Amino acid sequence: MDLKEKQSLNKKTIISEALPGFHQMATWRRDFHRHPELAWTEFRTATRIVETLRQLGWRVRFGPEVTDDCARMGLPPTEVVDKEWKRALTWGADPAILEQMRGCFTGVVGEWDTGRPGPLVAMRFEMDALEVSEATDNAHRPHREEFSSVNAGVMHACGHDGHLATGLGVASALPTLQPYLAGRVRLIFQPAEEGARGAASMVAADILDDVNYLLGIHLGCNTHSIGQLVCGNKNFLASDKIDVLFQGVGAHAGLNPEQGRNALLAAATAAIHLHAIPRHGEGVSRINVGVLTAGRSRNTIPDFASMQIETRGINNRVNEFMKERVMQIINGASQMYGVKSSTTTTGKGCEAASDEPLAKIVLEVAQEIPLFNEPLLFCDFSDSEDFTEMMRRVQELGGMATHMSLGTNLAAGHHLPTFDFDEVVLPLGVELLVTLIWRLLAKNPEVMSGPQKNRLQR
Amino acid sequence: MDLKEKQSLNKKTIISEALPGFHQMATWRRDFHRHPELAWTEFRTATRIVETLRQLGWRVRFGPEVTDDCARMGLPPTEVVDKEWKRALTWGADPAILEQMRGCFTGVVGEWDTGRPGPLVAMRFEMDALEVSEATDNAHRPHREEFSSVNAGVMHACGHDGHLATGLGVASALPTLQPYLAGRVRLIFQPAEEGARGAASMVAADILDDVNYLLGIHLGCNTHSIGQLVCGNKNFLASDKIDVLFQGVGAHAGLNPEQGRNALLAAATAAIHLHAIPRHGEGVSRINVGVLTAGRSRNTIPDFASMQIETRGINNRVNEFMKERVMQIINGASQMYGVKSSTTTTGKGCEAASDEPLAKIVLEVAQEIPLFNEPLLFCDFSDSEDFTEMMRRVQELGGMATHMSLGTNLAAGHHLPTFDFDEVVLPLGVELLVTLIWRLLAKNPEVMSGPQKNRLQR
Amino acid sequence: MDLKEKQSLNKKTIISEALPGFHQMATWRRDFHRHPELAWTEFRTATRIVETLRQLGWRVRFGPEVTDDCARMGLPPTEVVDKEWKRALTWGADPAILEQMRGCFTGVVGEWDTGRPGPLVAMRFEMDALEVSEATDNAHRPHREEFSSVNAGVMHACGHDGHLATGLGVASALPTLQPYLAGRVRLIFQPAEEGARGAASMVAADILDDVNYLLGIHLGCNTHSIGQLVCGNKNFLASDKIDVLFQGVGAHAGLNPEQGRNALLAAATAAIHLHAIPRHGEGVSRINVGVLTAGRSRNTIPDFASMQIETRGINNRVNEFMKERVMQIINGASQMYGVKSSTTTTGKGCEAASDEPLAKIVLEVAQEIPLFNEPLLFCDFSDSEDFTEMMRRVQELGGMATHMSLGTNLAAGHHLPTFDFDEVVLPLGVELLVTLIWRLLAKNPEVMSGPQKNRLQR
Amino acid sequence: MDLKEKQSLNKKTIISEALPGFHQMATWRRDFHRHPELAWTEFRTATRIVETLRQLGWRVRFGPEVTDDCARMGLPPTEVVDKEWKRALTWGADPAILEQMRGCFTGVVGEWDTGRPGPLVAMRFEMDALEVSEATDNAHRPHREEFSSVNAGVMHACGHDGHLATGLGVASALPTLQPYLAGRVRLIFQPAEEGARGAASMVAADILDDVNYLLGIHLGCNTHSIGQLVCGNKNFLASDKIDVLFQGVGAHAGLNPEQGRNALLAAATAAIHLHAIPRHGEGVSRINVGVLTAGRSRNTIPDFASMQIETRGINNRVNEFMKERVMQIINGASQMYGVKSSTTTTGKGCEAASDEPLAKIVLEVAQEIPLFNEPLLFCDFSDSEDFTEMMRRVQELGGMATHMSLGTNLAAGHHLPTFDFDEVVLPLGVELLVTLIWRLLAKNPEVMSGPQKNRLQR
Repeated sequence: MDLKEKQSLNKKTIISEALPGFHQMATWRRDFHRHPELAWTEFRTATRIVETLRQLGWRVRFGPEVTDDCARMGLPPTEVVDKEWKRALTWGADPAILEQMRGCFTGVVGEWDTGRPGPLVAMRFEMDALEVSEATDNAHRPHREEFSSVNAGVMHACGHDGHLATGLGVASALPTLQPYLAGRVRLIFQPAEEGARGAASMVAADILDDVNYLLGIHLGCNTHSIGQLVCGNKNFLASDKIDVLFQGVGAHAGLNPEQGRNALLAAATAAIHLHAIPRHGEGVSRINVGVLTAGRSRNTIPDFASMQIETRGINNRVNEFMKERVMQIINGASQMYGVKSSTTTTGKGCEAASDEPLAKIVLEVAQEIPLFNEPLLFCDFSDSEDFTEMMRRVQELGGMATHMSLGTNLAAGHHLPTFDFDEVVLPLGVELLVTLIWRLLAKNPEVMSGPQKNRLQR
Repeated sequence: MDLKEKQSLNKKTIISEALPGFHQMATWRRDFHRHPELAWTEFRTATRIVETLRQLGWRVRFGPEVTDDCARMGLPPTEVVDKEWKRALTWGADPAILEQMRGCFTGVVGEWDTGRPGPLVAMRFEMDALEVSEATDNAHRPHREEFSSVNAGVMHACGHDGHLATGLGVASALPTLQPYLAGRVRLIFQPAEEGARGAASMVAADILDDVNYLLGIHLGCNTHSIGQLVCGNKNFLASDKIDVLFQGVGAHAGLNPEQGRNALLAAATAAIHLHAIPRHGEGVSRINVGVLTAGRSRNTIPDFASMQIETRGINNRVNEFMKERVMQIINGASQMYGVKSSTTTTGKGCEAASDEPLAKIVLEVAQEIPLFNEPLLFCDFSDSEDFTEMMRRVQELGGMATHMSLGTNLAAGHHLPTFDFDEVVLPLGVELLVTLIWRLLAKNPEVMSGPQKNRLQR
Repeated sequence: MDLKEKQSLNKKTIISEALPGFHQMATWRRDFHRHPELAWTEFRTATRIVETLRQLGWRVRFGPEVTDDCARMGLPPTEVVDKEWKRALTWGADPAILEQMRGCFTGVVGEWDTGRPGPLVAMRFEMDALEVSEATDNAHRPHREEFSSVNAGVMHACGHDGHLATGLGVASALPTLQPYLAGRVRLIFQPAEEGARGAASMVAADILDDVNYLLGIHLGCNTHSIGQLVCGNKNFLASDKIDVLFQGVGAHAGLNPEQGRNALLAAATAAIHLHAIPRHGEGVSRINVGVLTAGRSRNTIPDFASMQIETRGINNRVNEFMKERVMQIINGASQMYGVKSSTTTTGKGCEAASDEPLAKIVLEVAQEIPLFNEPLLFCDFSDSEDFTEMMRRVQELGGMATHMSLGTNLAAGHHLPTFDFDEVVLPLGVELLVTLIWRLLAKNPEVMSGPQKNRLQR
Repeated sequence: MDLKEKQSLNKKTIISEALPGFHQMATWRRDFHRHPELAWTEFRTATRIVETLRQLGWRVRFGPEVTDDCARMGLPPTEVVDKEWKRALTWGADPAILEQMRGCFTGVVGEWDTGRPGPLVAMRFEMDALEVSEATDNAHRPHREEFSSVNAGVMHACGHDGHLATGLGVASALPTLQPYLAGRVRLIFQPAEEGARGAASMVAADILDDVNYLLGIHLGCNTHSIGQLVCGNKNFLASDKIDVLFQGVGAHAGLNPEQGRNALLAAATAAIHLHAIPRHGEGVSRINVGVLTAGRSRNTIPDFASMQIETRGINNRVNEFMKERVMQIINGASQMYGVKSSTTTTGKGCEAASDEPLAKIVLEVAQEIPLFNEPLLFCDFSDSEDFTEMMRRVQELGGMATHMSLGTNLAAGHHLPTFDFDEVVLPLGVELLVTLIWRLLAKNPEVMSGPQKNRLQR
């Protein structure tokens, strides 16, 4: 056994002893799974994160300091927020912490400093759940093992509960490793990833500006079983989420239909023509009108309509093309029916690709962990994610970013009522991230020589 | 003063003494106004009618006997019915009476017999209120004088509360007049007129089959102030109310949009093309898609859509033309998008016109009552009403029918949150109807010679 | 036989002797039938009218004097005009007369003056034929008897050939009656009635301004056989004929479809939504997109589209409503697709109704002519006609107008390749018109007492 | 100079002497340019090819033997064919040869055999021109130098004239090289490439079945100047060209619009919804409605409509998806409007990619020719070509195929009225092809060792 092997063995042992056990990981995950909260109202989730990070010795920042007020998108109506606030209190959320989150400032940032100069590694974990009614049959493990959602109609059906547990796992492991590392680590717990609503507000609060390495991870995307790993996703689709409101004029449909201005028909024609936006020669484009609601009563010309739509593009240019045409069509359809219309952007994610040097480091690290039998360097993400907003900021300022897909066996696809995953992935994910941080923050200077040097030169 | 004048004076005095006073009329009306109930759940309203008719000495029939089970259209979902049932109980509805209405059999029929052979006069009064949130400012008299709706979101905004009071007024006046009349009177209290859902079911229960004269009345249609009266409305538009459901297939809008079957776009295109059904050379046609709801989430190809539509035509033939095209378009739109669709008729009214001989009798009667300074023989109704289903049955079997518009000053148009009317119309309406019944059932044989003879000959 | 009877017999004899015989009428009609010419290029037809009127002793006016340059609508392209001009020459049109029609001034007005003061009666006759290919089988009399069109693709399929013969018949009869009449007669031979393009330009040339009685007549509308007559048509639909041009941007449909601006889709969506303009509570409205042409090649985003549309309304207000919505929809559709659009009004007719006093005179006159066994005072026209532009001008200035339908047996409906009519109607029509003029211009003052007095007082 | 260099020099000299000069090439090209003919009526072009090949000593096959009757798509109407036939005769086409092409069998195949066993190399050249009106200004060289089209409205605007000259150039060079080669060469002159109509019929006539190497070439695609070359195009889009006919029922738009069945609106809605077919997750899809024509007159409900459309897909599966949806939409739109519809496939091309081993040989050959300063191995074609039908057949049977893009300076883009190219490319193209044939058919066995061995093994 030569020196390098020895060092490696040593490192493995040290890391292994620092990692939280499966039971702790599952406990965290199942607690979050039982208490899912929708975007921007992750009150109980966020207070729990704050408390746990503090217990683990992390410095914690939250409130408007880490989430820019104006850059938040798609906030729920006040009455919903009030209701959710009360629910969080009944779930035992600490009122003092909660108070600082008033106004939906649910983002949380944990800071850990080795005390030695070195790079800053940041990781992002999402906190919000989905409007999905969880399955209630015994084939569904969360139901069978009694950790299914107690919040009717809301469910962690995208794995964010697992991400949160993973974040806390990393938080619990790192302090032990302080003697071996140089630099800092930042854990970013982001609200409102669903609908791509939250990331931009944390970027706007400047918490990405000093990051050298940004890491993101998702359970089960582009992968299907324990042991699979994509080290760097690329070809994230740029995307905008847009709400549209049409305001028409009602009239009696029998007596004087000519006096109406039909908002339903304006929305209907807009919906159809949005889907008829031409394909783009540069590559992938997407459009969807996911929700359309119009009219109040059968015998009245409908005086309002609303639509929830989204655009996507292989790059920002294609997505911008889609948005321009969307606006043109909405304006044209409104004019056709003499109705007024307005649009609100409620979410957005830009084009992005993981940095190859960083993805290669992930690959090397993964190859040291026996369970990863199929690590892939790159994969097309082909979907949208607001993590790209964070990636862009870090990359623009000279840092590097990668977004990984971590394989686990799924009971059903994401966003479905029977979604569930093999929790074995949780300690494995923590091991990957902690080993990766070891590699990036190791006191060994050669690791630093690559990207960090670039960083300083830029 | 000759004999005829004497008789006339005598009649006026007798009738006048039989009529209920303004205070009683307003009390009834305001009680119903405070307790509005939606179609097919008029539980408290109907029990109150039953009780009052019984107190006034009328024989009362209700339950499936007067409302055919299968001919009812647009029934609310069971959970709504259960909730309304409980509400009615909390409002003090008699549980014993209520029990006989279980399953939404809220129609009530009062029968009164002079004991002498003669014609049967029937009158129809509607019981249901609207999904309208009543105004809460002091300019609104029901609010100011504290009889506004205690059922949030539901309001008697179409005057049916006044119709009910009028019906009870007639019920209270007639027994006193027994010595002077020959024949019978039937008061029909119909559920679910809004949406044209209830009349057909009472027709199907055969309660119109032996009627010689059918009378209907509406406050404030085609008229604007106290003293106006239309003796016979005609040109009711034939109409069908149809619910449409589209069932598609969801898919991720970013990853594999081609796997979806877009129910939203099928509905949107159906809506547009329904409005493009050609005008009809024979006369008035109407189409409206009043409500469209589709899709569940922004980033999923919508897997369902629903629409509430209505057709109208100047006559049954034109309305049938509209319906045929509606079905053609819904089928075609479904096929275009590979989705399934189904339609349900939730209401209907046929073409109809008041009988001229009967309207002329109304005119003569109105000319005897000084307040009616502007009685009109005929007016185009130009809207739909399920009273036409009752008219058709009576007319088919050789009887005569008329539908009157009774003028009163309105605070705002029908169906609006600030709708209210001048209650002076209530005793006036009772006087008109009671005088009309006197004329139709008078022991004087010459009155009978007109329509009744026709009736027997047919 | 009293004096009145004697006078009547005398009048009948005088008129009878003045009328042209059947053979002359058929000769004129068949000559026009063989040489049909499209709107604004009635060069040979008009020169023939000029020549014949002159031969019959009428003063003739034509050229820009009777047809306002700028008020003409829907003129054909120059190359078509040039071709038609040459064709007319080959058909023997007098070059000197033709020269004065250069620029499509094909309207002709004949003036006849009794030399005595009295009212001015004007009559309108249409000159243009249709783009219809005449039937070539022996069942079609014009083919069998060898007077079918020698202008391929063009046919007198609306009876204008018969109208022209009728006009010449009147022109030939009147001079003989000079001793018995007082006042003047004007025969207006109008170009381009099809598409409602010509009447407005003759109105704009002020040739209707001094008219007391305006008469129009149409063979076979609202009637089906010899002997039928409608004395006054009413409820002409107001109508506009509009051409629309969409100008987009082409692009390769495979390589860069996003660079196109799709004029075809803009036109397609405009067409659909034009048909979805709401029905009007006031009464009849109509819309039609009769022709749509778009695109040049299968694999190019279409860069142009054109549509021919028309609106109609029961009155000018409804027609204006339709036009406003048409413009709104065309603008909106253009905006949706980022294309430019322009519209041109190529024809129009206003609302109109015949004057009852004049129609009653027609009725009285018809009752004197035994063949008219079914004269009707009024009938709904329910279609559009640019004669209404002339009626409006005369009525606005205090005169009276009527438009009559003259029954005759038709071989097939108007505008069909097998259209033909029973020529017996031709002398009958002349007899009606001449007798009517006798009545209106008789030296007997009582006839004058009605409308003419009104006229002077207005 | 070693042996290999000597051989190379020797080969170059031999080839160089065999090649036709620039003048001959330009003469051929300009003759074809002056006499452009549309698809399936390349009568004069084909007879000229037959004559020239015969003069150069080639065996020539044409008529139904090389073009399968039933597999031909998009044939012109008989009256057009007759007219073009006569035009070809007036242009001096040999009547005897022409007679064998009766019925639009214009494909021609030239066969040349070295007399020694060896592979069969086939090349494809297109014969048809486009419906484009050639520019008539002096900036356009064909006009200036007097070889522009004498067939008004038809133009060689896609370079097929240059392809034909190149084919004849190869035909003239090869016989001289007989001593050095082993195997056979087949020159395929294909009709109706525009619209992808002709290739399948030559495939169906089995003329590709024994081909070892198939070569196709296009001037100016994916390249911009002399010296550029793409050795193998890939990612041809699968495509179908479809004509659609809608048959409705006419009616008077004013009197009885309800009696019509509107073919225009059926086509318009089909057009819109065709463009709204969802994007496909697998990759590029395209749809275009390039031409839409509907209706005959402004005031008639349109009784017919026709559309020219095309689908494309990154592979056959995606193209099939598009076609299925196209049929669904056309059927649905027809049903919506109660009209009948039918579709005809008038052209098609499958997915295809050039074979890498063969493209590499092209690259090696090009590198020997100094003018090719920028040869590329592969390029995405991203458009459709019916040459892919030939490629597929050869590849299915174990041969190899490549489609090359040959750079030349263009005066304007393909299909434009000012299209022209630098004729220097013509001898360069011949040199490339002849050198390539030398390489493929050289008596040197090593060349054969690659693909040919595979061929035999498959």
